[in-house]
Amino acid sequence: MRGTAARLAFQVLGGNGLRQPNVAIAGVTGAVGQEFLACMEKRNFPFNKLKLLASERSAGKKITYKGQTYVVEALTENSFEDVDIALFSAGGSQSRQYAPAAVKAGTIVIDNSSAFRMDPKVPLVIPEVNPQAAYRHNGIIANPNCSTIIMAVAVYPIHQAAGVRRASVATYQAASGAGAAAMAELEQQARDWVEGQPLTQDIFGRQYIWNLFSHNSKIDPSTGYNEEEVKMMRETTKIFDDDSIRVTATCIRVPVLRAHCEAINLTLNEPLSEDQARAILAKAPGITIHDNRADNSFPEPLMASGIDDVLVGRIRADLSQENGLEMFVAGDQLLKGAALNAVQIAELLIEQ
Amino acid sequence: MRGTAARLAFQVLGGNGLRQPNVAIAGVTGAVGQEFLACMEKRNFPFNKLKLLASERSAGKKITYKGQTYVVEALTENSFEDVDIALFSAGGSQSRQYAPAAVKAGTIVIDNSSAFRMDPKVPLVIPEVNPQAAYRHNGIIANPNCSTIIMAVAVYPIHQAAGVRRASVATYQAASGAGAAAMAELEQQARDWVEGQPLTQDIFGRQYIWNLFSHNSKIDPSTGYNEEEVKMMRETTKIFDDDSIRVTATCIRVPVLRAHCEAINLTLNEPLSEDQARAILAKAPGITIHDNRADNSFPEPLMASGIDDVLVGRIRADLSQENGLEMFVAGDQLLKGAALNAVQIAELLIEQ
Repeated sequence: MRGTAARLAFQVLGGNGLRQPNVAIAGVTGAVGQEFLACMEKRNFPFNKLKLLASERSAGKKITYKGQTYVVEALTENSFEDVDIALFSAGGSQSRQYAPAAVKAGTIVIDNSSAFRMDPKVPLVIPEVNPQAAYRHNGIIANPNCSTIIMAVAVYPIHQAAGVRRASVATYQAASGAGAAAMAELEQQARDWVEGQPLTQDIFGRQYIWNLFSHNSKIDPSTGYNEEEVKMMRETTKIFDDDSIRVTATCIRVPVLRAHCEAINLTLNEPLSEDQARAILAKAPGITIHDNRADNSFPEPLMASGIDDVLVGRIRADLSQENGLEMFVAGDQLLKGAALNAVQIAELLIEQ
Repeated sequence: MRGTAARLAFQVLGGNGLRQPNVAIAGVTGAVGQEFLACMEKRNFPFNKLKLLASERSAGKKITYKGQTYVVEALTENSFEDVDIALFSAGGSQSRQYAPAAVKAGTIVIDNSSAFRMDPKVPLVIPEVNPQAAYRHNGIIANPNCSTIIMAVAVYPIHQAAGVRRASVATYQAASGAGAAAMAELEQQARDWVEGQPLTQDIFGRQYIWNLFSHNSKIDPSTGYNEEEVKMMRETTKIFDDDSIRVTATCIRVPVLRAHCEAINLTLNEPLSEDQARAILAKAPGITIHDNRADNSFPEPLMASGIDDVLVGRIRADLSQENGLEMFVAGDQLLKGAALNAVQIAELLIEQ
């Protein structure tokens, strides 16, 4: 069984110093790709050899990591010889094209795209929620959607304590979820606006500064939900391994650069007081409570930008329903929402 | 009875041309005050004499309306001699101080502040929802909170058709709700940011551009809800004249200039299909449906800015609960959320 083999391999690799894993990053020039490197550096991620991969267009670029210069190579089916772990964030079609070749070469792929998330053979992992699932992989481990991760880190401890029957979520999502070029376009619109110039609209095709809009993913014409919302619904039940949880979401893009916020309204199976919820969240991994009523200070995207934890605040009983609980969360879309979570999954494999 | 007298007076005034009402605007130099004039002009609001009132500081300023120049006078208790209708938007403390004197002078006050909204003797009116309540006034008619109005215009037709048991709302609120200086500060932050200068933070005390934050109103330390949220809860039951409706809200300020958006999740008493909901909303007053799945085009604050109707989109069944319905709305905070609604109330009185 492949899962067992992979586990054993890393017991050897990580456990007794025979050698550290050889790591590849596919999509290294993207917004998440850059954060893979930043997270690895910050966490002193152990590696033997490092291979930086991107599209043909970016091949030849030089990237310095920990004082050493690496030349970006074009991502091909032959890129994975001798690679133990590959972090993928090059888009769904690239993952579908190259991840199977990587697996064939013996690489464990941690994939940030949506390509394999709902595949029953692929674990979908948030280390704070379902680390055990990572060890049941068949060569690919999927990193969940950013909005899903940020919600799930905050909701899972409550689910364990009182059972979440239903979550109704409204998101406030940053430009970063659409990539580095999207972030640059939002910033460019500020310059254009100040200078009285026509606004650059190459990515979003609309004014984004001083505006907000429904998430720019495809809408199911029959249900009216967009793909981002469907991800939040389906991925949550898979990660929590609980089909009874119902999630509904409205996903909105706001003019913010790199952290997502979410207003989360929960219906619990059992009563849980606000104080109990706060105590549970205070002990939960990956969370910092920021809930200061006296100063009216709660999670904001700027506070969450560049930090690892999901900020949780506005914790309060929802008086409009039985066993209702409200919270408002903020998390860095590029870190916990993407790169950090993937690097944490890689650490799970090495720690084995 | 005062209410009856006022009604009769305006039957005479508006009905057969004896004379049009004398109108005063208190707080004319503010963001809403300016929109009172714009709405009156656009709607060709009938008046005989017009008196423009503001704080001592603004007295002496000149404002041109329909080609005639008016000198702003200081708001005092003696301002209302001979005034039939006064539109107030000078803040709650000014309303509490001067509205009683206006009523004593025989003026009908339409007050945009929160000072009298929950007073059982004061009707709280949205002309599309409860116009009849306007005629039961005792000299003061309250204009509801902006977020409440924008929600209620969209939710009331659904409530009439299928009964709203519960509304769970997350708002995306513009700077305009905090006044003209707040709008200017947000714009100034864009200039500061582009020029690499420290951001002007006199009003909000924080970075607002590329950020969002929990609504800057006082929080009830015991419940954790802020005043804006409490207004949405309480005012809705008063306007709908139905204590059974439960509302919960999370109110968030986003970097947008003058239109509020709201993600509204409804639990209905009776089944109502998405198509039925759309048909009902299409016929309802004050609403434009903007719900284009093929083009991924839905209500945005920029689309709603400067227009009278509330835009309603993302209309869909909420599959996470029985009889659930989702929608996303956008409305101009200064128009339907404030000035327009007040002018429409004044029109109700005159049309009698």
